[in-house]
Amino acid sequence: MNRNILLTIEYDGTGFHGWQRQPGLRTAQGVLEEGLSRITGQQIQVDGTSRTDAGVHALGQRATFQGDFGIPTDRIPIAANHIMGGDIRITEAVDVPDGFHARFSSRGKKYRYVIWNSSEMPVFYRNYRYQVEKPLDIGRMRRAAEDIVGTHDFQCFQAAGGTPRETTVRTIYDLQLLEEVQGRQIALEISGDGFLYNMVRIITGTLVDIGLGKMPVDAAANAIQAGDRRLAGHTAPPQGLYLMEVYY
Amino acid sequence: MNRNILLTIEYDGTGFHGWQRQPGLRTAQGVLEEGLSRITGQQIQVDGTSRTDAGVHALGQRATFQGDFGIPTDRIPIAANHIMGGDIRITEAVDVPDGFHARFSSRGKKYRYVIWNSSEMPVFYRNYRYQVEKPLDIGRMRRAAEDIVGTHDFQCFQAAGGTPRETTVRTIYDLQLLEEVQGRQIALEISGDGFLYNMVRIITGTLVDIGLGKMPVDAAANAIQAGDRRLAGHTAPPQGLYLMEVYY
Repeated sequence: MNRNILLTIEYDGTGFHGWQRQPGLRTAQGVLEEGLSRITGQQIQVDGTSRTDAGVHALGQRATFQGDFGIPTDRIPIAANHIMGGDIRITEAVDVPDGFHARFSSRGKKYRYVIWNSSEMPVFYRNYRYQVEKPLDIGRMRRAAEDIVGTHDFQCFQAAGGTPRETTVRTIYDLQLLEEVQGRQIALEISGDGFLYNMVRIITGTLVDIGLGKMPVDAAANAIQAGDRRLAGHTAPPQGLYLMEVYY
Repeated sequence: MNRNILLTIEYDGTGFHGWQRQPGLRTAQGVLEEGLSRITGQQIQVDGTSRTDAGVHALGQRATFQGDFGIPTDRIPIAANHIMGGDIRITEAVDVPDGFHARFSSRGKKYRYVIWNSSEMPVFYRNYRYQVEKPLDIGRMRRAAEDIVGTHDFQCFQAAGGTPRETTVRTIYDLQLLEEVQGRQIALEISGDGFLYNMVRIITGTLVDIGLGKMPVDAAANAIQAGDRRLAGHTAPPQGLYLMEVYY
Protein backbone atom coordinates (compact mmCIF):
# COMPACT_ATOMS: atom_id res chain seq x y z
CA MET A 1 0.00 0.00 0.00
CA ASN A 2 1.44 3.36 -0.97
CA ARG A 3 1.57 5.71 1.98
CA ASN A 4 1.72 9.52 2.00
CA ILE A 5 3.46 10.99 5.03
CA LEU A 6 3.75 14.58 6.20
CA LEU A 7 6.79 15.50 8.27
CA THR A 8 7.50 18.50 10.49
CA ILE A 9 11.21 19.28 10.49
CA GLU A 10 13.50 21.50 12.53
CA TYR A 11 17.03 22.44 11.49
CA ASP A 12 19.87 24.75 12.30
CA GLY A 13 20.70 26.24 8.91
CA THR A 14 24.32 27.01 9.81
CA GLY A 15 25.73 23.72 8.56
CA PHE A 16 23.54 23.35 5.45
CA HIS A 17 23.78 24.74 1.93
CA GLY A 18 20.08 25.48 2.21
CA TRP A 19 17.12 23.16 1.88
CA GLN A 20 17.30 22.04 -1.71
CA ARG A 21 19.16 18.87 -2.74
CA GLN A 22 22.40 19.64 -4.58
CA PRO A 23 25.01 17.11 -5.71
CA GLY A 24 28.07 17.07 -3.47
CA LEU A 25 26.71 19.60 -0.98
CA ARG A 26 25.20 19.00 2.44
CA THR A 27 21.60 20.24 2.29
CA ALA A 28 18.63 19.70 4.60
CA GLN A 29 16.63 17.92 1.90
CA GLY A 30 19.63 15.76 1.00
CA VAL A 31 20.30 14.66 4.59
CA LEU A 32 16.60 14.02 5.15
CA GLU A 33 16.21 11.92 2.00
CA GLU A 34 19.30 9.92 2.85
CA GLY A 35 18.00 9.24 6.37
CA LEU A 36 14.52 8.27 5.18
CA SER A 37 15.95 6.07 2.43
CA ARG A 38 18.04 4.19 4.99
CA ILE A 39 15.20 3.56 7.44
CA THR A 40 12.67 2.54 4.77
CA GLY A 41 15.05 0.64 2.50
CA GLN A 42 13.65 2.60 -0.47
CA GLN A 43 14.86 5.53 -2.52
CA ILE A 44 12.88 8.36 -0.91
CA GLN A 45 12.35 11.81 -2.39
CA VAL A 46 10.65 14.47 -0.29
CA ASP A 47 8.72 17.59 -1.32
CA GLY A 48 9.44 20.43 1.08
CA THR A 49 7.25 23.46 1.63
CA SER A 50 9.93 26.14 1.66
CA ARG A 51 13.27 26.14 -0.13
CA THR A 52 15.16 27.95 2.60
CA ASP A 53 18.52 29.50 1.66
CA ALA A 54 21.89 28.59 3.15
CA GLY A 55 22.07 29.76 6.75
CA VAL A 56 18.28 30.09 7.18
CA HIS A 57 16.81 28.06 10.05
CA ALA A 58 13.56 26.15 10.41
CA LEU A 59 11.45 25.23 13.40
CA GLY A 60 8.43 24.15 11.38
CA GLN A 61 9.51 23.13 7.89
CA ARG A 62 7.15 20.57 6.32
CA ALA A 63 7.71 17.87 3.73
CA THR A 64 5.71 15.03 2.24
CA PHE A 65 6.94 11.74 0.80
CA GLN A 66 5.39 8.57 -0.54
CA GLY A 67 6.33 4.91 -0.40
CA ASP A 68 5.34 1.38 0.47
CA PHE A 69 7.35 0.33 3.52
CA GLY A 70 6.94 -1.27 6.91
CA ILE A 71 8.05 1.20 9.54
CA PRO A 72 5.12 2.63 11.54
CA THR A 73 4.60 6.35 10.97
CA ASP A 74 5.13 7.32 14.58
CA ARG A 75 8.50 5.53 14.63
CA ILE A 76 9.87 7.52 11.68
CA PRO A 77 11.11 10.54 13.69
CA ILE A 78 13.11 8.58 16.25
CA ALA A 79 14.57 6.20 13.66
CA ALA A 80 15.59 8.94 11.23
CA ASN A 81 16.82 11.37 13.90
CA HIS A 82 19.15 8.70 15.16
CA ILE A 83 21.12 8.71 11.90
CA MET A 84 20.76 12.25 10.52
CA GLY A 85 23.14 14.09 12.87
CA GLY A 86 22.31 16.64 15.51
CA ASP A 87 21.48 19.72 13.43
CA ILE A 88 18.31 18.42 11.75
CA ARG A 89 15.45 16.64 13.41
CA ILE A 90 12.00 15.36 12.44
CA THR A 91 9.64 16.50 15.18
CA GLU A 92 6.48 14.84 13.86
CA ALA A 93 5.30 12.39 11.20
CA VAL A 94 1.64 11.88 10.33
CA ASP A 95 -0.27 9.98 7.64
CA VAL A 96 -2.06 12.23 5.17
CA PRO A 97 -4.51 11.43 2.38
CA ASP A 98 -3.36 10.65 -1.16
CA GLY A 99 -2.67 13.84 -3.06
CA PHE A 100 -1.84 15.94 -0.03
CA HIS A 101 1.36 17.86 -0.87
CA ALA A 102 3.56 19.78 1.62
CA ARG A 103 3.82 22.79 -0.69
CA PHE A 104 0.80 22.78 -3.00
CA SER A 105 -1.66 22.00 -0.18
CA SER A 106 -0.33 24.75 2.10
CA ARG A 107 -2.42 27.87 2.71
CA GLY A 108 0.43 29.97 4.01
CA LYS A 109 3.49 30.26 6.19
CA LYS A 110 4.84 32.14 9.14
CA TYR A 111 8.43 33.39 9.41
CA ARG A 112 10.33 35.05 12.22
CA TYR A 113 13.34 37.32 11.64
CA VAL A 114 15.50 38.18 14.66
CA ILE A 115 17.51 41.42 14.80
CA TRP A 116 20.03 42.09 17.57
CA ASN A 117 20.07 45.87 17.96
CA SER A 118 23.19 46.71 19.92
CA SER A 119 26.84 47.50 19.30
CA GLU A 120 27.68 44.48 21.48
CA MET A 121 26.49 41.00 20.53
CA PRO A 122 27.24 37.75 22.38
CA VAL A 123 29.35 35.44 20.22
CA PHE A 124 26.65 32.80 20.62
CA TYR A 125 24.28 34.80 18.39
CA ARG A 126 26.56 35.16 15.36
CA ASN A 127 24.75 32.44 13.37
CA TYR A 128 21.28 33.16 14.80
CA ARG A 129 20.72 36.94 14.73
CA TYR A 130 21.28 39.91 12.43
CA GLN A 131 23.29 42.50 14.31
CA VAL A 132 22.28 46.10 13.66
CA GLU A 133 24.63 48.26 15.70
CA LYS A 134 22.91 51.66 15.50
CA PRO A 135 19.60 52.23 17.34
CA LEU A 136 16.47 51.35 15.38
CA ASP A 137 13.34 53.46 15.71
CA ILE A 138 10.74 50.71 16.13
CA GLY A 139 7.90 53.25 15.87
CA ARG A 140 8.93 54.10 12.31
CA MET A 141 9.31 50.41 11.47
CA ARG A 142 5.82 49.66 12.80
CA ARG A 143 4.27 52.46 10.77
CA ALA A 144 5.98 51.17 7.62
CA ALA A 145 4.89 47.60 8.42
CA GLU A 146 1.25 48.68 8.21
CA ASP A 147 1.78 49.49 4.52
CA ILE A 148 2.96 45.93 3.86
CA VAL A 149 0.06 44.03 5.43
CA GLY A 150 -2.69 43.10 2.98
CA THR A 151 -2.88 41.98 -0.64
CA HIS A 152 -0.36 43.65 -2.91
CA ASP A 153 1.87 43.02 -5.88
CA PHE A 154 5.13 42.43 -4.06
CA GLN A 155 7.56 42.31 -7.00
CA CYS A 156 9.56 45.10 -5.34
CA PHE A 157 10.43 42.65 -2.55
CA GLN A 158 11.56 39.85 -4.86
CA ALA A 159 15.19 38.95 -5.56
CA ALA A 160 16.32 37.73 -8.95
CA GLY A 161 17.09 34.03 -9.18
CA GLY A 162 14.00 32.43 -7.69
CA THR A 163 11.58 30.06 -9.37
CA PRO A 164 9.47 32.00 -11.91
CA ARG A 165 5.93 32.50 -10.57
CA GLU A 166 2.72 33.25 -12.42
CA THR A 167 1.97 36.24 -10.26
CA THR A 168 3.79 38.35 -7.70
CA VAL A 169 0.57 39.23 -5.88
CA ARG A 170 0.57 37.88 -2.33
CA THR A 171 -1.40 38.48 0.85
CA ILE A 172 0.42 39.30 4.08
CA TYR A 173 -1.95 38.33 6.90
CA ASP A 174 0.05 39.87 9.72
CA LEU A 175 3.35 41.62 10.35
CA GLN A 176 4.38 42.32 13.95
CA LEU A 177 7.52 43.92 15.31
CA LEU A 178 8.24 42.63 18.81
CA GLU A 179 10.60 44.25 21.30
CA GLU A 180 12.47 41.58 23.24
CA VAL A 181 15.41 41.29 25.69
CA GLN A 182 14.86 44.79 27.13
CA GLY A 183 14.68 46.31 23.67
CA ARG A 184 18.01 44.93 22.50
CA GLN A 185 16.25 42.42 20.27
CA ILE A 186 13.62 43.17 17.63
CA ALA A 187 11.79 40.23 16.12
CA LEU A 188 9.73 40.55 12.98
CA GLU A 189 6.92 37.99 12.77
CA ILE A 190 5.25 37.77 9.40
CA SER A 191 2.58 35.45 8.04
CA GLY A 192 1.07 35.30 4.59
CA ASP A 193 -0.33 33.07 1.89
CA GLY A 194 3.01 32.90 0.10
CA PHE A 195 6.39 34.58 -0.18
CA LEU A 196 8.54 35.47 -3.19
CA TYR A 197 12.25 34.72 -3.36
CA ASN A 198 14.06 36.49 -0.47
CA MET A 199 10.88 38.43 0.30
CA VAL A 200 11.12 38.27 4.10
CA ARG A 201 14.78 39.26 4.03
CA ILE A 202 14.11 42.24 1.72
CA ILE A 203 11.13 43.36 3.82
CA THR A 204 13.36 43.13 6.91
CA GLY A 205 16.16 45.08 5.22
CA THR A 206 13.69 47.76 4.12
CA LEU A 207 12.26 48.09 7.64
CA VAL A 208 15.80 48.28 9.07
CA ASP A 209 16.71 51.06 6.61
CA ILE A 210 13.52 52.88 7.64
CA GLY A 211 14.26 52.28 11.34
CA LEU A 212 17.76 53.74 10.91
CA GLY A 213 16.37 56.81 9.12
CA LYS A 214 18.22 55.91 5.91
CA MET A 215 14.89 55.65 4.08
CA PRO A 216 11.65 57.59 4.62
CA VAL A 217 8.85 55.95 6.54
CA ASP A 218 6.76 55.58 3.36
CA ALA A 219 9.58 53.83 1.47
CA ALA A 220 7.90 50.42 1.65
CA ALA A 221 4.58 51.84 0.37
CA ASN A 222 6.36 53.66 -2.46
CA ALA A 223 8.34 50.58 -3.47
CA ILE A 224 5.16 48.45 -3.53
CA GLN A 225 3.29 51.04 -5.60
CA ALA A 226 6.13 51.43 -8.11
CA GLY A 227 6.84 47.68 -8.20
CA ASP A 228 10.54 48.52 -8.22
CA ARG A 229 13.15 46.49 -6.30
CA ARG A 230 15.51 49.48 -6.41
CA LEU A 231 13.13 51.49 -4.23
CA ALA A 232 13.16 48.86 -1.48
CA GLY A 233 15.95 48.43 1.07
CA HIS A 234 18.82 45.98 1.42
CA THR A 235 18.49 42.22 1.77
CA ALA A 236 18.94 41.25 5.43
CA PRO A 237 21.37 38.34 5.91
CA PRO A 238 20.10 34.74 6.15
CA GLN A 239 21.10 33.81 9.70
CA GLY A 240 18.35 35.89 11.37
CA LEU A 241 15.54 34.08 9.53
CA TYR A 242 13.44 31.19 10.88
CA LEU A 243 10.65 29.33 9.10
CA MET A 244 8.21 28.91 11.99
CA GLU A 245 5.03 27.32 10.73
CA VAL A 246 3.18 26.15 7.63
CA TYR A 247 -0.61 26.51 7.50
CA TYR A 248 -2.86 23.87 5.97
CA MET B 1 56.99 51.37 29.23
CA ASN B 2 55.92 47.81 29.87
CA ARG B 3 52.16 47.56 30.27
CA ASN B 4 50.12 44.85 32.01
CA ILE B 5 46.60 44.40 30.61
CA LEU B 6 43.69 42.35 31.87
CA LEU B 7 41.17 41.11 29.31
CA THR B 8 37.65 39.77 29.70
CA ILE B 9 36.91 37.25 26.95
CA GLU B 10 33.81 35.52 25.66
CA TYR B 11 33.88 32.49 23.37
CA ASP B 12 31.71 29.78 21.92
CA GLY B 13 33.72 26.64 22.70
CA THR B 14 32.22 24.65 19.81
CA GLY B 15 34.90 25.58 17.29
CA PHE B 16 37.90 25.45 19.62
CA HIS B 17 40.13 22.63 20.86
CA GLY B 18 39.82 24.21 24.29
CA TRP B 19 41.59 27.23 25.73
CA GLN B 20 45.20 26.14 25.79
CA ARG B 21 47.56 26.85 22.89
CA GLN B 22 48.42 23.68 20.93
CA PRO B 23 50.49 23.49 17.75
CA GLY B 24 48.35 23.00 14.65
CA LEU B 25 45.01 23.20 16.51
CA ARG B 26 42.59 26.11 16.74
CA THR B 27 42.38 27.08 20.41
CA ALA B 28 41.00 30.16 22.16
CA GLN B 29 44.40 31.12 23.55
CA GLY B 30 46.03 30.60 20.17
CA VAL B 31 43.51 32.76 18.29
CA LEU B 32 43.71 35.44 20.97
CA GLU B 33 47.52 35.53 20.94
CA GLU B 34 47.58 35.73 17.17
CA GLY B 35 45.07 38.61 17.18
CA LEU B 36 46.92 40.54 19.90
CA SER B 37 50.28 39.96 18.20
CA ARG B 38 48.91 41.41 14.98
CA ILE B 39 47.44 44.55 16.54
CA THR B 40 50.47 45.26 18.74
CA GLY B 41 53.18 44.22 16.30
CA GLN B 42 54.77 42.14 19.06
CA GLN B 43 54.83 38.46 19.93
CA ILE B 44 52.15 38.34 22.65
CA GLN B 45 51.63 35.50 25.10
CA VAL B 46 48.61 35.58 27.39
CA ASP B 47 48.01 33.93 30.76
CA GLY B 48 44.42 32.76 31.04
CA THR B 49 42.54 32.10 34.25
CA SER B 50 40.86 28.83 33.32
CA ARG B 51 42.06 26.20 30.87
CA THR B 52 38.64 25.28 29.57
CA ASP B 53 38.29 21.98 27.70
CA ALA B 54 37.22 21.56 24.08
CA GLY B 55 33.53 22.43 23.74
CA VAL B 56 33.35 24.41 27.00
CA HIS B 57 32.12 28.00 26.62
CA ALA B 58 33.13 31.21 28.36
CA LEU B 59 31.29 34.42 29.05
CA GLY B 60 33.84 35.78 31.50
CA GLN B 61 37.23 34.21 30.85
CA ARG B 62 40.10 36.45 31.93
CA ALA B 63 43.67 36.75 30.68
CA THR B 64 46.62 39.05 31.31
CA PHE B 65 49.47 39.96 28.96
CA GLN B 66 52.42 42.32 28.99
CA GLY B 67 54.17 44.42 26.38
CA ASP B 68 55.38 47.83 25.31
CA PHE B 69 53.18 48.99 22.43
CA GLY B 70 51.22 52.01 21.28
CA ILE B 71 47.56 50.98 20.96
CA PRO B 72 45.38 52.52 23.71
CA THR B 73 43.95 49.93 26.10
CA ASP B 74 40.33 50.77 25.36
CA ARG B 75 40.93 50.22 21.61
CA ILE B 76 42.24 46.70 22.05
CA PRO B 77 38.83 44.94 22.06
CA ILE B 78 37.54 46.51 18.85
CA ALA B 79 40.85 46.11 17.01
CA ALA B 80 41.36 42.48 18.02
CA ASN B 81 37.71 41.45 17.61
CA HIS B 82 37.84 42.69 14.04
CA ILE B 83 40.41 40.05 13.09
CA MET B 84 39.72 37.10 15.42
CA GLY B 85 36.55 35.73 13.81
CA GLY B 86 33.06 35.70 15.20
CA ASP B 87 33.27 32.98 17.85
CA ILE B 88 35.65 34.73 20.27
CA ARG B 89 35.46 38.30 21.46
CA ILE B 90 37.27 40.52 23.94
CA THR B 91 34.57 42.32 25.90
CA GLU B 92 36.84 44.48 28.04
CA ALA B 93 40.49 45.48 28.41
CA VAL B 94 41.83 47.36 31.44
CA ASP B 95 45.29 48.34 32.69
CA VAL B 96 46.33 46.53 35.85
CA PRO B 97 49.35 47.00 38.13
CA ASP B 98 52.63 45.19 37.54
CA GLY B 99 52.51 41.69 38.94
CA PHE B 100 48.75 41.28 38.61
CA HIS B 101 48.15 37.85 37.02
CA ALA B 102 44.84 36.59 35.59
CA ARG B 103 45.16 33.23 37.32
CA PHE B 104 47.39 33.69 40.38
CA SER B 105 45.65 36.90 41.46
CA SER B 106 42.16 35.42 41.20
CA ARG B 107 40.19 34.66 44.34
CA GLY B 108 37.72 32.34 42.70
CA LYS B 109 35.44 31.59 39.79
CA LYS B 110 31.83 31.02 38.94
CA TYR B 111 30.61 28.41 36.46
CA ARG B 112 27.18 27.61 35.07
CA TYR B 113 26.21 24.18 33.75
CA VAL B 114 23.01 23.92 31.69
CA ILE B 115 21.00 20.69 31.54
CA TRP B 116 18.08 20.25 29.15
CA ASN B 117 15.75 17.81 30.88
CA SER B 118 13.36 16.53 28.23
CA SER B 119 13.14 13.77 25.68
CA GLU B 120 12.82 16.48 23.01
CA MET B 121 15.57 19.05 22.52
CA PRO B 122 15.67 21.81 19.89
CA VAL B 123 18.53 21.24 17.43
CA PHE B 124 19.83 24.69 18.33
CA TYR B 125 20.86 23.48 21.79
CA ARG B 126 23.04 20.54 20.72
CA ASN B 127 26.31 22.40 21.35
CA TYR B 128 25.04 24.42 24.32
CA ARG B 129 23.15 22.07 26.64
CA TYR B 130 23.46 18.58 28.13
CA GLN B 131 20.33 16.65 27.29
CA VAL B 132 19.06 14.35 30.06
CA GLU B 133 15.98 12.62 28.69
CA LYS B 134 14.50 11.08 31.86
CA PRO B 135 12.95 13.34 34.51
CA LEU B 136 15.35 14.65 37.17
CA ASP B 137 14.24 14.98 40.78
CA ILE B 138 15.57 18.47 41.52
CA GLY B 139 14.71 18.09 45.22
CA ARG B 140 17.16 15.20 45.53
CA MET B 141 19.80 17.14 43.60
CA ARG B 142 19.39 20.16 45.89
CA ARG B 143 19.76 18.03 49.01
CA ALA B 144 22.95 16.49 47.62
CA ALA B 145 24.27 19.93 46.62
CA GLU B 146 24.20 20.99 50.27
CA ASP B 147 26.83 18.34 51.01
CA ILE B 148 29.17 19.85 48.42
CA VAL B 149 29.11 23.47 49.58
CA GLY B 150 31.93 24.37 51.98
CA THR B 151 35.60 23.46 52.39
CA HIS B 152 36.40 19.85 51.56
CA ASP B 153 39.04 17.66 50.01
CA PHE B 154 37.50 17.23 46.56
CA GLN B 155 39.84 14.60 45.09
CA CYS B 156 36.76 12.42 44.43
CA PHE B 157 35.63 15.03 41.86
CA GLN B 158 38.97 15.25 40.05
CA ALA B 159 39.69 13.61 36.70
CA ALA B 160 43.10 12.18 35.87
CA GLY B 161 45.19 14.22 33.46
CA GLY B 162 45.05 17.70 34.97
CA THR B 163 47.96 19.77 36.23
CA PRO B 164 49.24 18.26 39.51
CA ARG B 165 48.18 20.46 42.45
CA GLU B 166 49.65 20.73 45.93
CA THR B 167 46.31 20.14 47.55
CA THR B 168 42.88 18.99 46.50
CA VAL B 169 41.15 20.98 49.25
CA ARG B 170 38.88 23.66 47.82
CA THR B 171 36.05 25.84 49.11
CA ILE B 172 32.73 25.91 47.27
CA TYR B 173 31.06 29.20 48.19
CA ASP B 174 27.70 28.47 46.65
CA LEU B 175 25.92 25.83 44.58
CA GLN B 176 22.43 26.56 43.28
CA LEU B 177 20.12 24.47 41.11
CA LEU B 178 17.81 26.70 39.11
CA GLU B 179 14.63 25.57 37.38
CA GLU B 180 14.25 27.37 34.05
CA VAL B 181 12.08 27.23 30.90
CA GLN B 182 9.05 25.80 32.76
CA GLY B 183 11.19 23.16 34.42
CA ARG B 184 12.59 21.77 31.18
CA GLN B 185 15.96 23.33 31.92
CA ILE B 186 18.03 22.91 35.07
CA ALA B 187 21.03 25.18 35.51
CA LEU B 188 23.69 24.50 38.10
CA GLU B 189 25.49 27.65 39.26
CA ILE B 190 28.61 27.03 41.29
CA SER B 191 31.23 29.38 42.69
CA GLY B 192 34.35 28.60 44.64
CA ASP B 193 37.95 29.54 45.31
CA GLY B 194 39.23 27.01 42.81
CA PHE B 195 38.27 23.93 40.84
CA LEU B 196 40.14 20.70 40.10
CA TYR B 197 40.35 19.18 36.63
CA ASN B 198 36.81 18.41 35.35
CA MET B 199 35.42 19.12 38.82
CA VAL B 200 32.28 20.97 37.72
CA ARG B 201 31.48 18.31 35.12
CA ILE B 202 31.92 15.48 37.64
CA ILE B 203 29.82 17.30 40.26
CA THR B 204 27.13 17.81 37.61
CA GLY B 205 27.27 14.16 36.55
CA THR B 206 27.01 13.05 40.17
CA LEU B 207 24.00 15.30 40.79
CA VAL B 208 22.38 14.01 37.58
CA ASP B 209 22.90 10.41 38.71
CA ILE B 210 21.34 11.32 42.07
CA GLY B 211 18.47 13.17 40.35
CA LEU B 212 17.75 10.11 38.22
CA GLY B 213 17.76 7.83 41.26
CA LYS B 214 20.77 5.89 39.97
CA MET B 215 22.74 6.93 43.04
CA PRO B 216 21.56 7.56 46.63
CA VAL B 217 21.07 11.13 47.77
CA ASP B 218 24.13 10.91 50.02
CA ALA B 219 26.40 9.70 47.20
CA ALA B 220 28.20 13.04 46.93
CA ALA B 221 28.83 13.19 50.68
CA ASN B 222 30.10 9.61 50.67
CA ALA B 223 32.41 10.20 47.72
CA ILE B 224 33.88 13.31 49.39
CA GLN B 225 34.40 11.48 52.65
CA ALA B 226 36.07 8.49 50.99
CA GLY B 227 38.07 10.65 48.58
CA ASP B 228 37.28 8.11 45.88
CA ARG B 229 36.51 9.09 42.27
CA ARG B 230 34.80 5.72 41.75
CA LEU B 231 32.10 6.66 44.29
CA ALA B 232 31.20 9.82 42.37
CA GLY B 233 29.02 9.92 39.26
CA HIS B 234 29.75 10.25 35.56
CA THR B 235 31.49 13.22 33.93
CA ALA B 236 28.87 15.44 32.28
CA PRO B 237 29.78 16.43 28.70
CA PRO B 238 31.61 19.70 27.98
CA GLN B 239 29.02 21.56 25.90
CA GLY B 240 26.75 22.39 28.88
CA LEU B 241 29.50 24.23 30.76
CA TYR B 242 30.08 28.00 30.82
CA LEU B 243 32.83 29.89 32.66
CA MET B 244 30.84 32.89 33.89
CA GLU B 245 33.03 35.05 36.07
CA VAL B 246 36.41 35.32 37.73
CA TYR B 247 36.69 37.00 41.14
CA TYR B 248 39.60 39.29 42.07
